Amino acid sequence: MTQPLDIAVVGATGSVGETLVQILEELAFPVATLHLLASMESAGSSVMFAGKTIKVREVDSFDFAQVKLAFFAASPAVSRSFANKAQQAGCTVIDLSGGLDDALAVVPEANADSIANLKLPARLASPGSAAVALAVALAPLKGLLDIERVQVMASLAVSAQGREAVNELARQTAELLNARPLEPRFFDRQVAFNLLAQVGAVDEQGHAGLERRLVSELRELLGQPELKISVTCIQVPVFFGDSFSVAVQSRKPVDLVAVNAALESADSVELVERDDYPTPVGDAVGQDVVYVGRVRHGVDDDQQLNLWLTTDNLRKGAALNAVQVAQLLIKHRL
Amino acid sequence: MTQPLDIAVVGATGSVGETLVQILEELAFPVATLHLLASMESAGSSVMFAGKTIKVREVDSFDFAQVKLAFFAASPAVSRSFANKAQQAGCTVIDLSGGLDDALAVVPEANADSIANLKLPARLASPGSAAVALAVALAPLKGLLDIERVQVMASLAVSAQGREAVNELARQTAELLNARPLEPRFFDRQVAFNLLAQVGAVDEQGHAGLERRLVSELRELLGQPELKISVTCIQVPVFFGDSFSVAVQSRKPVDLVAVNAALESADSVELVERDDYPTPVGDAVGQDVVYVGRVRHGVDDDQQLNLWLTTDNLRKGAALNAVQVAQLLIKHRL
Repeated sequence: MTQPLDIAVVGATGSVGETLVQILEELAFPVATLHLLASMESAGSSVMFAGKTIKVREVDSFDFAQVKLAFFAASPAVSRSFANKAQQAGCTVIDLSGGLDDALAVVPEANADSIANLKLPARLASPGSAAVALAVALAPLKGLLDIERVQVMASLAVSAQGREAVNELARQTAELLNARPLEPRFFDRQVAFNLLAQVGAVDEQGHAGLERRLVSELRELLGQPELKISVTCIQVPVFFGDSFSVAVQSRKPVDLVAVNAALESADSVELVERDDYPTPVGDAVGQDVVYVGRVRHGVDDDQQLNLWLTTDNLRKGAALNAVQVAQLLIKHRL
Repeated sequence: MTQPLDIAVVGATGSVGETLVQILEELAFPVATLHLLASMESAGSSVMFAGKTIKVREVDSFDFAQVKLAFFAASPAVSRSFANKAQQAGCTVIDLSGGLDDALAVVPEANADSIANLKLPARLASPGSAAVALAVALAPLKGLLDIERVQVMASLAVSAQGREAVNELARQTAELLNARPLEPRFFDRQVAFNLLAQVGAVDEQGHAGLERRLVSELRELLGQPELKISVTCIQVPVFFGDSFSVAVQSRKPVDLVAVNAALESADSVELVERDDYPTPVGDAVGQDVVYVGRVRHGVDDDQQLNLWLTTDNLRKGAALNAVQVAQLLIKHRL
């Protein structure tokens, strides 16, 4: 039996933080004391955990020396403000915000061995949902493919942007169905029955931060720092569940029978056979795996592998992966 | 002044056929007599054209010798049943259904010269909306790129599948917002707030008919029969307007300044600058151009060009292109 740990969850009142607390309970994670933290505006509310009510306190005044492990599920700015403080107090940080560039990105199904020689307290990152989904699906195929290039089109659910974004999609949709004038608030334009081709601001080269993040995380997770990865992230009018259209270019012909067999036996993968396909709403949401479907060659191109992935962006794409990283740490020595 | 033509529109009561009749009027197409045709079930209704009411008659009993030009905007099966008969009666066929494999695909902005030596009466095809959008955007770039491969993710609006599909998306959405149980009818599952990773049945190799069609049409339109094109078509909960995430792999570095200049001056292209992007609802719908945005290299890959396209699937993606093909024929000699 593992020794229970004192743990903090920063950003406990957000969508990801809330899911994280739920998953700690579902998986019977060995928690001694759970400290729930948030910014001043959200502190004071209460959250249920394992039959007890826990009050959410301000992160600013928290002494991280009280815990061995802290999940950061608030904004990138919050992670940048408090992660150093936490680590200096002896606490290992698992960041879910994407705010810590120097944190080691971990998806247990892809690079569990990366933590073998880790010095504690450490700074780890649970990558963005796109990198998690792609790493889970591609890691078991690394031995079968000689990957030259990966092309990703990520169709992201609004829930990744928090509850306000979810409410905005519902409100816009209702306004349109009732033929009332549309007033965008959270998004800068109509998202209901529309596609937004850009998520967040773009840099000089035209790439969004999320897109850059996916490229660097996926290279790290697959252990291929030079891998060519191109990605377009779009916002779709879906509440929950991210989906990915993926084309992997290999330097040799792709053996589809072997690929299907490898996916069939891979951890955290649910393979959907030809003639059917997984959807975010019908399959992924609430589940702990990455659904993989539409496995096929390119048209007249047996060196290309096409895949369709869909996963719960708040669970396996975020909170669940972070908890699985923590489980891996415990197994190894935390 | 062009001599007015006697014309037939087969499938005049469907979404595409209706848009086609509208566009003939908008563009003051030189029509002498317009014959509107449909299957037995839809015959008998009336359509307004240029201030007159035209009765829709049964295609089965129509004598195609009465017209010089017929648009086929019904199902592929209807085109296969009647196109031969029409052509044998001396009538040039412009098919919008995708049902005629041997028809010459034409997008005037891309391959206008293909009709130079055409023998009349001919069988022409207005390609699917994806091929139209890609041909319009890529043809002006052919001299700047040495295209090795094109990767397309097509996010298709429900209206391409007709009015029933439009009604189904509205009905499903209203049911979900009102927390009533969802009963899929036209689609086999929930399409509201969801993504369907497959449009139509797939073949032994896992490719949908629409996907195969795009590959062969785009190869024809770009005059590159061996071009490697990979495509995934998905159904998105959008009523009108198709969108395309495109990655073009070139064998030499892509000059973005030259690409932007070429797109800026290309026919039927509206270029959207960095920091903004076009959307189907906000830009494309009701317009006669292909909107192009998010023009950028791949991440760390200057031999790749990424684009986002969006276009009105019923207008430039279908009816408008077909009418423009007819205008081209007239200009040349019909």
